[in-house]
Amino acid sequence: MTTLPEKRLAYVPKIPQALQHLLHVRCEADPSSPNVRPEIADLFPHLHTTPSYRIVSGAAAKKAPLKVGVVFSGGPASGGHNVLAGLFDALGQIHPASQLVGFVGGFSGLINNRCKALSLEQIDAVRNQGGFDLIGTGRTKLESMEDMQKAHAALHSFDALVVIGGDDSNTNGALLAEYLLSQGSKTAIIGVPKTIDGDLRSRDIELSFGFDSACKTYAELIGNICRDALSTRKYYHFIKLMGRSASHIAVECALLTQPNLTIIGEERKSLAQIVQDIADLIIRRKAVGKEFGVILVPEGLIEFMPEMGALTGELSRGVLPEKLCPKDRATWDLLPEKIQSQLRNSKDPHGNVRVSQISTEELLIQLVKKELVARNFQGSANFQEHFFGYEGRSCLPTNFDANYAYSLGVLGALAARDRVTGVICAIRSLKETPDQWIPVLSSLVPMIHLEERNGLKKPVIAKVLVDVKGAYFLSFSTHRNQWALEDNYRFPGPIQFFGDTALTDSCPRILELTSVYTPST
Amino acid sequence: MTTLPEKRLAYVPKIPQALQHLLHVRCEADPSSPNVRPEIADLFPHLHTTPSYRIVSGAAAKKAPLKVGVVFSGGPASGGHNVLAGLFDALGQIHPASQLVGFVGGFSGLINNRCKALSLEQIDAVRNQGGFDLIGTGRTKLESMEDMQKAHAALHSFDALVVIGGDDSNTNGALLAEYLLSQGSKTAIIGVPKTIDGDLRSRDIELSFGFDSACKTYAELIGNICRDALSTRKYYHFIKLMGRSASHIAVECALLTQPNLTIIGEERKSLAQIVQDIADLIIRRKAVGKEFGVILVPEGLIEFMPEMGALTGELSRGVLPEKLCPKDRATWDLLPEKIQSQLRNSKDPHGNVRVSQISTEELLIQLVKKELVARNFQGSANFQEHFFGYEGRSCLPTNFDANYAYSLGVLGALAARDRVTGVICAIRSLKETPDQWIPVLSSLVPMIHLEERNGLKKPVIAKVLVDVKGAYFLSFSTHRNQWALEDNYRFPGPIQFFGDTALTDSCPRILELTSVYTPST
Repeated sequence: MTTLPEKRLAYVPKIPQALQHLLHVRCEADPSSPNVRPEIADLFPHLHTTPSYRIVSGAAAKKAPLKVGVVFSGGPASGGHNVLAGLFDALGQIHPASQLVGFVGGFSGLINNRCKALSLEQIDAVRNQGGFDLIGTGRTKLESMEDMQKAHAALHSFDALVVIGGDDSNTNGALLAEYLLSQGSKTAIIGVPKTIDGDLRSRDIELSFGFDSACKTYAELIGNICRDALSTRKYYHFIKLMGRSASHIAVECALLTQPNLTIIGEERKSLAQIVQDIADLIIRRKAVGKEFGVILVPEGLIEFMPEMGALTGELSRGVLPEKLCPKDRATWDLLPEKIQSQLRNSKDPHGNVRVSQISTEELLIQLVKKELVARNFQGSANFQEHFFGYEGRSCLPTNFDANYAYSLGVLGALAARDRVTGVICAIRSLKETPDQWIPVLSSLVPMIHLEERNGLKKPVIAKVLVDVKGAYFLSFSTHRNQWALEDNYRFPGPIQFFGDTALTDSCPRILELTSVYTPST
Repeated sequence: MTTLPEKRLAYVPKIPQALQHLLHVRCEADPSSPNVRPEIADLFPHLHTTPSYRIVSGAAAKKAPLKVGVVFSGGPASGGHNVLAGLFDALGQIHPASQLVGFVGGFSGLINNRCKALSLEQIDAVRNQGGFDLIGTGRTKLESMEDMQKAHAALHSFDALVVIGGDDSNTNGALLAEYLLSQGSKTAIIGVPKTIDGDLRSRDIELSFGFDSACKTYAELIGNICRDALSTRKYYHFIKLMGRSASHIAVECALLTQPNLTIIGEERKSLAQIVQDIADLIIRRKAVGKEFGVILVPEGLIEFMPEMGALTGELSRGVLPEKLCPKDRATWDLLPEKIQSQLRNSKDPHGNVRVSQISTEELLIQLVKKELVARNFQGSANFQEHFFGYEGRSCLPTNFDANYAYSLGVLGALAARDRVTGVICAIRSLKETPDQWIPVLSSLVPMIHLEERNGLKKPVIAKVLVDVKGAYFLSFSTHRNQWALEDNYRFPGPIQFFGDTALTDSCPRILELTSVYTPST
């Protein structure tokens, strides 16, 4: 019997016109020089003048076989295997004797030189499939000079290494590119923007791959739960969504499903205010005869709550709960025991509280229950918790992600051929059809700034948060009052791969609504 | 922009040949007399001789307009709206002046006579859509004589009431049918088998509607998680699946996704043994270099554990933990504090422990962690918990469920026309294509037996459990050892509605594998 994954193997990704004949295009430096902060330029003495590149018509520079390495870094995102397929096919087109070598299990595979040459048969088995399993992934970073030296040694015979990762992994890529230049190495380091979180963006990077598939999978489930809530009219569903600090996934899912309340971390409301908001919602809905609803909660919410930030800051500095200042102590006393225990016990090796380990949805439910009692609420409020994350990172990629990731792979091969280093593959005009997409190679260093991590200033690519003044946020927030009381739920249903292209090839709302990138902090 | 739900509105359900021309068929009593237990016959003096009915060729008895009521009872199952659509369309075909009236919010709508006449426009808006929201549902039962009298009054002008529900709701339907007969009422009571759990089955009822859509939705998510586990190689995912006592959903999902371990309640293993099994799995996988895996846990697992059964029995009888017999006390002491507290606090109004409220997956994780420490396990074992339930009850129905539920609705209208009471709509040969399906009206009383509930013997339709000697279970259990160590995961992906019918119209495995129904226990 044929299965859907088998059917998807046969899908041919659509790519930009500019990438359809690699032998007739080349990478050309963008004349506008990169705008790099001085303190960053000091950290990247060789790389900071690297320009971005456009893809222009012209005969290819050389036709020798290429040897290109590739590594996944961080959590899976749908489309990863298509980056490999795009790279593989394009390298073969550039020269049939080219080689694609996967480093296994993330940067640790690079450091320990665990790698495997990828065959056509292996690539054919993962076309348009979810997951990163062909070569695996990992969370190891290149941190020490020793790591850099080992990576250098592992790459000595390579023309390029393609790093498929998020903000931290691409920062690592830039640092490696700088190190290799300093050692006189000719190996190019080329990034590919991967993350479901949607927080790796720039003027050139309109979106990372994986966001669309993850959001559409979560939206399927949220829509199903909305319909269930509407049918049984007895539960408030609290749905926590993966996405680290930024609330892009929550906004996208809110636009796709129109639940009663979506909390957005970037609004920086206090915990007390959010609890008030939810209690208000429940009381207002009760007044119109509704004792059910659906509430979306972004994973990173706690980080933005002023009083929780103050509290976790104190705890991270080693202050014991008994010794907290009165204000933080009041916050601490407000918290359910389980959350207090999580705050005590979820510390990283540097003593910092891991806010991602806090059960935000449970915290909110407990406090809302208390608040409803305090307000003498006479209705019934029953809660169900959900957390959607792992379900959407390794799913079959949507056509959008399949096309986009494959195109990024092809672009990576072109960058490798033209030996462009310190750049990240990017595609502009993503809301147009793929043939109109505009591939560029965007210089990494201008994206980097200094950020305090564990007390040290470190160069990192800044996460892009939801702009609470931008069209994307506003297109959702202007409907909030309406969605709160009326049930304007949408039920998008499962991702479709066949039939009407309006369904199968739709692009994420984030692209339709944020045509111009505006950084927010 | 077109959406998937809009596209699905246009889908035309496929129905059995026997239901395509209602004016040329009629219900004919099956000559074989029903086999009813004497103690049940006593409870149904008027109804116990009711035969089952076949659909045969022949001129229709009458062509007067019909007034038919319909009610959903219990949790949603995908296809519910198609039962309404099938009823509506068939009633219109029988006589254009016929009326379909929905009782709102379950049996409480019937008791309180809250109802609405359904229009074509309303029906057209929910064709092939998930949920029960057009008329809502509820968990109220018809328990007292007063309830029966009120239902009788509400139905006095009706030709029939169609009860769309599971085992308890259809038991209620049978009791109401008996009561109406005893009162000389001519209103027919006609059941429709609804539940995602797959536990409402008989010789005639091969499956309830909703099971297929729920299992395929859960399997999509489980497959995604399997692929994620395989990509990151760092987590054991414990996935609890809705389904009440029976483990049918777990078996179906295991066959669709092939995870490393699926625990089946009906094997009646002890808690201690299950913890051993999981610890063994983790240790054996570590030996082959794997520190990840996926484990399915049915919601009803605890009910089947002998030592938990004994313990909850004692607690339900009001024995305090301190006063338990040594054996039960040993079980109690084994449990994590949270589970002890759930056992203390999750009691129904009769004092019975609500085992469905126990966090089985957390219980297992805690005990497995302890066991691994006791065995001096040197690897890493990180756990993630999931619970899939509400996501799959109100999703867009698969073609199978859309066809099946619609056909059940058409059959219900035919039963109403021919005033057949005390039966449940059923379709045989479901694994064939819909045109070959064989509709029957199956007598309810023979399905009923006496069961102790809260100390009283009550007539109920027996839940059908997984037959651990049947082909369905064996087709999964024979692969268990292989799936435990090798990663033979399958990634079925999201439900598809367009394209190859091998994908869109597939029937659930439970039908392929259990051609003949064998009751277990």
